[in-house]
Amino acid sequence: MANELKITEEFDIAIVGCGPAGLAAAINGAIRKKKIGIFGTDFCSPKLHHAPHIDNYLGLPELTGDELRQRFLAHVQKMGLKINDNKVTGVYPSEGGFTLQSRDKFYQAKAVIIATGVNTVKPIEQELDYLGRGVSYCATCDGPLYKGKRVIVLAYNREGLEEANFLAEIAAEVILVSQVKERDAAGIHLDERIKQIKGKPVGILGEMWSTGVKLEDQELKADGIFIIRDSVLPDQLVPGLNVSNQGIEVDRHCATNIPGIFAAGDCTGMPYQLSKATGEGQVAALSAVKYLDELKNKAKKELANWDRGRR
Amino acid sequence: MANELKITEEFDIAIVGCGPAGLAAAINGAIRKKKIGIFGTDFCSPKLHHAPHIDNYLGLPELTGDELRQRFLAHVQKMGLKINDNKVTGVYPSEGGFTLQSRDKFYQAKAVIIATGVNTVKPIEQELDYLGRGVSYCATCDGPLYKGKRVIVLAYNREGLEEANFLAEIAAEVILVSQVKERDAAGIHLDERIKQIKGKPVGILGEMWSTGVKLEDQELKADGIFIIRDSVLPDQLVPGLNVSNQGIEVDRHCATNIPGIFAAGDCTGMPYQLSKATGEGQVAALSAVKYLDELKNKAKKELANWDRGRR
Ligand SMILES: Cc1cc2nc3c(=O)[nH]c(=O)nc-3n(C[C@H](O)[C@H](O)[C@H](O)COP(=O)(O)OP(=O)(O)OC[C@H]3O[C@@H](n4cnc5c(N)ncnc54)[C@H](O)[C@@H]3O)c2cc1C
Ligand SMILES: Cc1cc2nc3c(=O)[nH]c(=O)nc-3n(C[C@H](O)[C@H](O)[C@H](O)COP(=O)(O)OP(=O)(O)OC[C@H]3O[C@@H](n4cnc5c(N)ncnc54)[C@H](O)[C@@H]3O)c2cc1C
Repeated sequence: MANELKITEEFDIAIVGCGPAGLAAAINGAIRKKKIGIFGTDFCSPKLHHAPHIDNYLGLPELTGDELRQRFLAHVQKMGLKINDNKVTGVYPSEGGFTLQSRDKFYQAKAVIIATGVNTVKPIEQELDYLGRGVSYCATCDGPLYKGKRVIVLAYNREGLEEANFLAEIAAEVILVSQVKERDAAGIHLDERIKQIKGKPVGILGEMWSTGVKLEDQELKADGIFIIRDSVLPDQLVPGLNVSNQGIEVDRHCATNIPGIFAAGDCTGMPYQLSKATGEGQVAALSAVKYLDELKNKAKKELANWDRGRR
Repeated sequence: MANELKITEEFDIAIVGCGPAGLAAAINGAIRKKKIGIFGTDFCSPKLHHAPHIDNYLGLPELTGDELRQRFLAHVQKMGLKINDNKVTGVYPSEGGFTLQSRDKFYQAKAVIIATGVNTVKPIEQELDYLGRGVSYCATCDGPLYKGKRVIVLAYNREGLEEANFLAEIAAEVILVSQVKERDAAGIHLDERIKQIKGKPVGILGEMWSTGVKLEDQELKADGIFIIRDSVLPDQLVPGLNVSNQGIEVDRHCATNIPGIFAAGDCTGMPYQLSKATGEGQVAALSAVKYLDELKNKAKKELANWDRGRR
């Protein structure tokens, strides 16, 4: 990351994801007096919202997932924590910790907890091969590169439609292939310059650089392709993160292979369950707190040595 | 274990400990239709009962530990589960799983979850060296061996006083060294045959076999020594269990080194916290369920092979 990035806000611990794991991490970090940033997409969380009946969260039997969701959010609000409802698209190492990118804004954190839930969406063919070479997950980040060019937007959620509108202001031509259900698109007025094409995307076309999108029944050509979904694969979100079939690899302290990055909840693997998620959220937060305290002690020691050296 | 043991009850999964970890394991195992046995000492759990104010159990902020404790117990009762309030003193491999010893009774289980909390009590000097060689943790189990002999009871809880009464019926002489506070002993009438001696036990005396107890200011001789506390060290409870400084060694699925034995909560190490305990209780229960289902499938396959072989 270049040094001249404008940082919107700085945190001790940034939490990516606002499901049970992320919220449990947030309250535990806040109790330990750390400055917490919580990032989420949609409301928190769609999974919990859809659970019809939850009977195995000890102490709160016989509630719907949505009732639990509301209780969780109330708990977080009671502690004075706010949720930034913008998706994080990248977490990169930077001086003093990590830089998080969320739309066109950048945030700084000394430690990061990944709590993005489990990813059921599979990338389409060759999507990952062309990522950064004509394929992007973020129009507000990469849109300006396509000024006067032709782009395709594959929209899997409302945000995708909004991103298409954003691109219509910049690109010469915007082709939208929407997978969004009508009721989920309610209230969004699409820019008239956008050309809609119906179909199901199955792959990315290209050679050195991507050249278009393959639908089930036709091929579309473009200079740039934007794929907008709720979820980002963990190793796309955090370059260099160790991920297996099971999920993000963590140890018993919820530490990943990258010092300062922790993970909790469904994203670390089975079982995909609520108490497991909140338990790991707690463990990840306390591990992050420990990590920060150790960093601080190390810095103190170095400073003391420095002072001694000068005398 | 001898084969002619009388088994009081059989379970799919026996859970040792009825704190948050054990109770979370119980509800999750019961939802998966397994027959669950929960064993506890005291009420469940003294730790939770003493927590003045708990703010980090997501969804239930601003409660006292005891309010949470009552909610947890209510949840378990709502699911029709009962708690057997007798301490388990040993878990031994046996045909078809494990035999659990609790006072003078034996129970059988196909899988076991250890959720005994963290052990703050340190054994006295040489206690572990003489365990099984004149030192016992259970009068109802080993008392009959000391018929007509002289025994010492080191009592750290009410149960210890009751055990002394039990031994007074069997042994020729019972010396009681009680560490129980007066208010905790309320209502217990000690047998007149018991001789009380004041003092703080510091070690076990002996050569090949234990010969007595060392108090701070004197030495007491006896043929047998009974030490009755709330907690049993995990590796005493389950011979062969891998335990480190941190606690019982488990993997990410809460499996211990012994197939069929799982562990959850404070007993598996830091952080000693509620959500971590319930999360691990859930994971341990689901792992035990998976273990049982795999055992059953294996047995089915073997039976099918057998049938094929006969045709
Ligand atoms: C129908 C159904 C029934 C269920 N029933 C039960 C049950 O009875 N008992 C039980 O224990 N569990 C149940 N579950 C599972 C439970 O809902 C999940 O285990 C739990 O929600 C996982 O929590 P989490 O925080 O890890 O992930 P999630 O709840 O999935 O939350 C992740 C959050 O992170 C957000 N996010 C993702 N990527 C980003 C990003 N890049 N930037 C910002 N935010 C991001 C997501 O939008 C989401 O809000 C059920 C699930 C479903 C779907
Ligand atoms: C004063 C205090 C304040 C706390 N505050 C908080 C807080 O704010 N937030 C937080 O998250 N945590 C807090 N905790 C920690 C929390 O109480 C524990 O992490 C939690 O109770 C651990 O649950 P557990 O089930 O693993 O063990 P425990 O709660 O210790 O339960 C173990 C149970 O097993 C029983 N048992 C042990 N051996 C046997 C045996 N051989 N046979 C049968 N039964 C047995 C015990 O009697 C006990 O009932 C606090 C603890 C204390 C003491």
